[in-house]
Amino acid sequence: MNETFDIAVIGATGLVGEALLMVLDEREFPVGNLFPLSAEAAIGQIAAFRERNLRVRAVDSFDFATVALVFVVEPLAPAQLVRIEAAGCALVDLSGSLPERQAPCVVAGVNAPAAVGRWLRSPLPAAVALASVLGKLRTVLQLRRVTATACLAVSSHGREGVEELARQTAQLLNARPVEPQLFDRQIAFNLLARAAAEMPDGHARDERRLASELLEVLGEPQLPVAITCVQAPVFFGDSLTVSLLCAESVDLPVVLHCLDDAPDLELVEQGDYPTAVGDALGQDLVYVGRVRGGLHDPCELNLWIASDNVRKGSALNAVQLGELLLKPHL
Amino acid sequence: MNETFDIAVIGATGLVGEALLMVLDEREFPVGNLFPLSAEAAIGQIAAFRERNLRVRAVDSFDFATVALVFVVEPLAPAQLVRIEAAGCALVDLSGSLPERQAPCVVAGVNAPAAVGRWLRSPLPAAVALASVLGKLRTVLQLRRVTATACLAVSSHGREGVEELARQTAQLLNARPVEPQLFDRQIAFNLLARAAAEMPDGHARDERRLASELLEVLGEPQLPVAITCVQAPVFFGDSLTVSLLCAESVDLPVVLHCLDDAPDLELVEQGDYPTAVGDALGQDLVYVGRVRGGLHDPCELNLWIASDNVRKGSALNAVQLGELLLKPHL
Repeated sequence: MNETFDIAVIGATGLVGEALLMVLDEREFPVGNLFPLSAEAAIGQIAAFRERNLRVRAVDSFDFATVALVFVVEPLAPAQLVRIEAAGCALVDLSGSLPERQAPCVVAGVNAPAAVGRWLRSPLPAAVALASVLGKLRTVLQLRRVTATACLAVSSHGREGVEELARQTAQLLNARPVEPQLFDRQIAFNLLARAAAEMPDGHARDERRLASELLEVLGEPQLPVAITCVQAPVFFGDSLTVSLLCAESVDLPVVLHCLDDAPDLELVEQGDYPTAVGDALGQDLVYVGRVRGGLHDPCELNLWIASDNVRKGSALNAVQLGELLLKPHL
Repeated sequence: MNETFDIAVIGATGLVGEALLMVLDEREFPVGNLFPLSAEAAIGQIAAFRERNLRVRAVDSFDFATVALVFVVEPLAPAQLVRIEAAGCALVDLSGSLPERQAPCVVAGVNAPAAVGRWLRSPLPAAVALASVLGKLRTVLQLRRVTATACLAVSSHGREGVEELARQTAQLLNARPVEPQLFDRQIAFNLLARAAAEMPDGHARDERRLASELLEVLGEPQLPVAITCVQAPVFFGDSLTVSLLCAESVDLPVVLHCLDDAPDLELVEQGDYPTAVGDALGQDLVYVGRVRGGLHDPCELNLWIASDNVRKGSALNAVQLGELLLKPHL
């Protein structure tokens, strides 16, 4: 009989938490008992896992010594991280709660930590998508600069984001005034110039996080990266435009073959293109299209990426990191 | 008494045509008689100008010798252009019908043709916005590379684009299947990786046009430009993310002062940002925000632009070019 592991999921009832439970089930992760937890809001709610209804318990009073692995989906206070560490659990953080130095950032299929510790960080969904593509491309290209615009779905802000876009859209179609709540202004039929709070240097928090996670995953701390995160009126799925500068002239057939060959990518045929809604939703692949050279510079490569931010960019990568952590014991 | 000029507007009943008539009126353009024309679809429709209702006539049978200036809003067959030339009319083309070599491309306030001929091209709305900002910036920066993602409103495709986004959105909110007609797939709550037909090299027609118009207006044919045009589920207003590489370190206070000082631009204060819907709509200014340096490169400058594609990017610039053409006679 195979070994199983007891697991805690902090934030199991949000969009990502629900997707994570589904992916654990689909991938036949060796779960013994599953404990859905929440720091606050969701305590007492019900999370469904393998046709069982589980009541969400409070993080504060949970005994982490009873589980082998913790998924941190919702932000967690440092004091709770200390308790989890003291209990000796393995941990996968999706929430950005973990300081960079405390655990390596990993995208499954792109990088693996030199020595697998017991804690790993899963990066922002757009970083998962971008790293999946660039990680493959750099086997045939030497990257000199990455410029990307990530148009993020409202589900980056969880169920509240989805509800607000739906509500604003209905208000506008019914000629009623729009009342922004979660977002700082009208998101329906509009694009917002940032998707997270801005730092003193003008970069948004998610832009800085995305850039630093990308460089960590690629293992190229010196690569210049310019990132803009735009909030788009899209429910699910991130879309990215990417322009790369390379050390040498880009050989397009080689690039296309490389992308076509990657198991985690779906290269859409030239002349067509993928979209978040039409292609990426619900998929475990990152979609790539509109692969083209530069108009003026032979060392330039441009492309378009669409990826499911909740499933591929969050839940799936986190579960794959969980598999990596438990592998030595399986 | 001031001199007036008889004017023809080919495509007067579309979104841009209507805005053009409004701007002609608002700016007290010295219009004598105004003749709304159409090649086909709109013949017999009514265009309103200065509280008069004017019936749209056929281009084919119109005697261009009776007017001094022609605005070409809807695409026009080469044979008609030959007739307009033979009649000796001045002409402003917004439609892209005119080959590049036949007339200079001009953005009011940015460039002026060395010798004003009788014909001018008004560029794509996103090129008007981008050139307005870069034209100002290069007084304080030496540009080495421009990378931009232009998220285009559905009104780029005229009234049909607006109607399709509204129809698809209503279908989705009512849980009915989406039926794409003008766009090749679902545009509601989605982003499409291109907004125009693709050419054999993978660049879309509008990407190539935008890049070449930008370089012509800036008078910098050697500047490398990477452009992606994305079709966004936004009714009116283009939004652009721009990343610039400069020859030297960027002095942010100097850049901000330069942008703040430009009469055609509205620089939104640091920490805030403009949007197409909330700021740019109905305005004669190009809005700029999120001005920030590079994360890793001191020679990098990033910013965000929002501009009304119909009014500022099309109608206003065209009327300003008309003023330029008639100025010697005023």
